Amino acid sequence: MKQEVLKEFIQKVWNEGDINAIPKYIAEKYTIVHDPADPWEGMELDVADFQERVSVSRAPVPDQAFDIQELYEKEDSICITWRWSATHLGEIAGIPPSGKKITMSGATVYYFQNNLITGHWQVADRLGVFQQMQSNQNE
Amino acid sequence: MKQEVLKEFIQKVWNEGDINAIPKYIAEKYTIVHDPADPWEGMELDVADFQERVSVSRAPVPDQAFDIQELYEKEDSICITWRWSATHLGEIAGIPPSGKKITMSGATVYYFQNNLITGHWQVADRLGVFQQMQSNQNE
Repeated sequence: MKQEVLKEFIQKVWNEGDINAIPKYIAEKYTIVHDPADPWEGMELDVADFQERVSVSRAPVPDQAFDIQELYEKEDSICITWRWSATHLGEIAGIPPSGKKITMSGATVYYFQNNLITGHWQVADRLGVFQQMQSNQNE
Repeated sequence: MKQEVLKEFIQKVWNEGDINAIPKYIAEKYTIVHDPADPWEGMELDVADFQERVSVSRAPVPDQAFDIQELYEKEDSICITWRWSATHLGEIAGIPPSGKKITMSGATVYYFQNNLITGHWQVADRLGVFQQMQSNQNE
């Protein structure tokens, strides 16, 4: 059940941007336990905060897609490794849109309670994203 | 058994730098499936290559320590999330030693065959490391 919740959450919310579906997947409080360089790191979000986070995050990369590589499940959490790809169509951290396809890899632990996601611990190859955006700028 | 192999490998080889212990833990061929910005990414290493990789990697950070956060096990692999800390005592990617304590987080999938490690898929917060090293330089 947790696996289905997580896969649908990633597809509907992060890949398709359906922020109205968010209450189906996350608990009333969602904690970003660890996510270095994410603007919301360390914060506790309610549904409205989370909807804003998804909207703001997706704005410069509206066709973004997370592709789950491997999935590990324990009683109260799921760890996934993933590849991400997107077209860079808006400003990211001060870098203007390049129009180029960029990719990133990462891993996320999602914590669950009653089949709802209560937060995550995440690391991603943000250095690689900056290198791709900056090399794009110079072309 | 895989868990014990992995924990001992990380402690003895990566934390303590005991490269003579490497043949106890890795298979004859070790493949770095994915590890963005690692100089050995995509390569297939034998024991001697792996010993060189550990020596070169540890040289600028000889007191480095990986601390496993969470561990997920499947039949042929283990995924761990980790925190790393080290004192920056040698040049890293052209950045001179700052003498400061730096930290990093990451996640690694280790692949096993017959209780020996055959390779890994890894992502780490290398952007955070560069930010810490560079802010150290300016102090």
